[in-house]
Amino acid sequence: MTDLDQYLEENRDRFEQELCELLRIPSVSTDGLHLAEIRQAGQWVCDQLQGMGLEAEMLETVGNPVVFAQSPPVPGAPVVLVYGHYDVQPPDPLEEWLSPPFEPTRRNGNLYARGATDDKGQLFTHLKSTEAWMKTYGKLPVQLKFVIEGEEEVGSEGLEDLIAREPERLACDVAVVSDSSQFAPGQPAVTYGLKGIAYFELRLTGPKQDLHSGSFGGAVTNPVNCAARMMASLMDDKGRVQIDGFYDDVQPLHDREREQFAMLPFDETAFMRNIGVNGVTGEDGYTTLERRWARPTFDINGIWGGYQGDGAKTILPAKAGVKFSFRLVPNQDPKKIQQALRAKLEQLCPPGIEMELIDLHSATGVVVPLDSPYMAAAAAAIESGFGRPPVFIREGGSIPVVTVFHEKLGVDTLLLGWGQDDDNTHSPNEKFSLADFHRGIKTSAYLWNTMGKIEVDDS
Amino acid sequence: MTDLDQYLEENRDRFEQELCELLRIPSVSTDGLHLAEIRQAGQWVCDQLQGMGLEAEMLETVGNPVVFAQSPPVPGAPVVLVYGHYDVQPPDPLEEWLSPPFEPTRRNGNLYARGATDDKGQLFTHLKSTEAWMKTYGKLPVQLKFVIEGEEEVGSEGLEDLIAREPERLACDVAVVSDSSQFAPGQPAVTYGLKGIAYFELRLTGPKQDLHSGSFGGAVTNPVNCAARMMASLMDDKGRVQIDGFYDDVQPLHDREREQFAMLPFDETAFMRNIGVNGVTGEDGYTTLERRWARPTFDINGIWGGYQGDGAKTILPAKAGVKFSFRLVPNQDPKKIQQALRAKLEQLCPPGIEMELIDLHSATGVVVPLDSPYMAAAAAAIESGFGRPPVFIREGGSIPVVTVFHEKLGVDTLLLGWGQDDDNTHSPNEKFSLADFHRGIKTSAYLWNTMGKIEVDDS
Repeated sequence: MTDLDQYLEENRDRFEQELCELLRIPSVSTDGLHLAEIRQAGQWVCDQLQGMGLEAEMLETVGNPVVFAQSPPVPGAPVVLVYGHYDVQPPDPLEEWLSPPFEPTRRNGNLYARGATDDKGQLFTHLKSTEAWMKTYGKLPVQLKFVIEGEEEVGSEGLEDLIAREPERLACDVAVVSDSSQFAPGQPAVTYGLKGIAYFELRLTGPKQDLHSGSFGGAVTNPVNCAARMMASLMDDKGRVQIDGFYDDVQPLHDREREQFAMLPFDETAFMRNIGVNGVTGEDGYTTLERRWARPTFDINGIWGGYQGDGAKTILPAKAGVKFSFRLVPNQDPKKIQQALRAKLEQLCPPGIEMELIDLHSATGVVVPLDSPYMAAAAAAIESGFGRPPVFIREGGSIPVVTVFHEKLGVDTLLLGWGQDDDNTHSPNEKFSLADFHRGIKTSAYLWNTMGKIEVDDS
Repeated sequence: MTDLDQYLEENRDRFEQELCELLRIPSVSTDGLHLAEIRQAGQWVCDQLQGMGLEAEMLETVGNPVVFAQSPPVPGAPVVLVYGHYDVQPPDPLEEWLSPPFEPTRRNGNLYARGATDDKGQLFTHLKSTEAWMKTYGKLPVQLKFVIEGEEEVGSEGLEDLIAREPERLACDVAVVSDSSQFAPGQPAVTYGLKGIAYFELRLTGPKQDLHSGSFGGAVTNPVNCAARMMASLMDDKGRVQIDGFYDDVQPLHDREREQFAMLPFDETAFMRNIGVNGVTGEDGYTTLERRWARPTFDINGIWGGYQGDGAKTILPAKAGVKFSFRLVPNQDPKKIQQALRAKLEQLCPPGIEMELIDLHSATGVVVPLDSPYMAAAAAAIESGFGRPPVFIREGGSIPVVTVFHEKLGVDTLLLGWGQDDDNTHSPNEKFSLADFHRGIKTSAYLWNTMGKIEVDDS
């Protein structure tokens, strides 16, 4: 790999300059106002892939185009699907940026720009590693299929439609996604578990209009009292969700996993200081990392009803609303939970209140087996690229495309994040460490090599 | 009283025309934009009182002026303080009025205008009854003191200041207020009990900013979950408030009161239909009227926190807020309840949440003895004026000035309401029945007579 290492070394500056080109395109997908820039960014990625000798094209979808590219098949070696997204979040609030969001700027070894880490900077590492292989050896040790979408920030509708229509085009043995973070600075990680989610909105309607709380209070059912009561009934004082069967399908944490989590250099005091609290709570019997990564949770995301202005208004509100969600662990079925929740809330709903429960969205959780050859290949590549073996972590968030790959393509996804927790994704002053950018490229280049040694039966 | 009856009969049209003059003045006190009209309405009332031969003046206060007028002392007979307010609520939303709010309009036997019943129309009945006595007999059977304020809709600060400064000027034996409703059309009432109130705002602060509910949910205390839990803990599933000592000072309902409430022609089905609900709930063991009038209650008046927009946002909110209040029955002490509530919430507040509890306002409840000679005088006058004896009812609302009269002047207040529950006070299309207006004047005229027969020791 000496020639390859040398190629990466010699092209560092150009890689950074090219990334800046991509970051200058304001491909914001959330507001529907940047369709030309969306297409421009997709085309830029497509041209890059074509330029290094891959078959590449823009696939039209019901939404924004998906860039698809592939290298030639390698008999006996795996087909690896590389996923990324070229769309970005809006840059608001603009006044909080220290340098303009679409003018990439270097400070303190970081590159600041919207999309620097989420996901343009991270996806670009896989493009540059591929280029290095093609320019150095003229071929790759595995077949790569790139799927770079433009709607990750708004629900991936176009990609999901494409996978449903043409699953054979995307057929592969494993998927690789770099759109997450390391465990800490200097400590790379492989994320092997994601939570699922079941998100709901509850609307409660009482009297046809707000009533005088003196004349009617205590005798007319108050929808806000009712909302508080219903929500409080969903969790006991030990932090356990109170829905029939909620824990039936929860896989207990393995002793080995708990030991590994406990060995991670997690500083709870620093964690609390960073978010500005003087204590943390959660399900009894579990640590903070276990609660965040591997136990199901219940959080109210929003609540409203009645008077929210200054001072006192003596009303009995006509309506109340709550948005709330459960984060699910792998093997929990959102459908079963929806049904049990509905039954529970209907039973709790008192006379005088009409209840509407809306299923806003749901996804199942996933865990990637730790003992697969792909996981070993990723760990070896990370050790080469970052100079340190990765830790294996889980994540409380959901990445729906990982569930889609699992369900529609039948493959596991390796979540190899080069970012950091404080990269300000979705916030002002998004950044990406340039050192991590180059380590990511090197890791990716080594990953194609370690993956190439895995034998697959492609008969 | 024949001459007096004749005077009232002959002047019906003029009384209505004069009321319309007063109703045309937009003396809205809530927005601070109508100071000239406020003063104009006060002066109009003052001129009326002066015109009928009373000493009358505008007393300046820290707020809007109070109209004060008095007739000569009547030795051995009571001094009666007549309270009313010349300010009105804003007329918004204007587009819902069928005729302009400050252009009084007759329809179906009612007079429609802002202030028609609350309180210009009702207070005017006492002016016209007084005029009838003065014009017919040249004197009154009691000494009357009129106190007509211009800040009832915004907290009566000026009046309370005046009473604190000059209690001797307002010294009296009993107060009369007509600013409420009959029990039903054709069924006049005396309101002998009002609830008190203790109103709070609870602010809960968790992390310093909204967090990702996937990465942090279940491990960081959620202020909205906490708000729901705290609120739910304040009442059990039998509708009983769960604060230490809350019921200690509650006077149980007398069997005789319960029997009287039960005999009132209260139609619960019509009540539910009017407010648009299919059932009612409240404290176990009590009827709807008992709950509304004579049992303490707990209602959330407003709640907020996190995301209230369309769709799903997966955040763990940084803050939550709740406005909530207890309606108290006579003898309950708001101060004791504030302390017990604070202790309870502080005990419930979990690690990771900072709690701020604000006492927004409070008032004690009052009950006027049913067996007083003033009550008998009022009942007799109502039977003469309305052709039917009154029923004795209580009310779930609070009228702070009644508490002030009790505490600062040491007198009970007779709440003699000529309005109806559907008069749309504080809403578009406020109205007052013209028949009830004239019955109110006649009742008031007879009330001065029946009151005059009560012997008081004014040595």
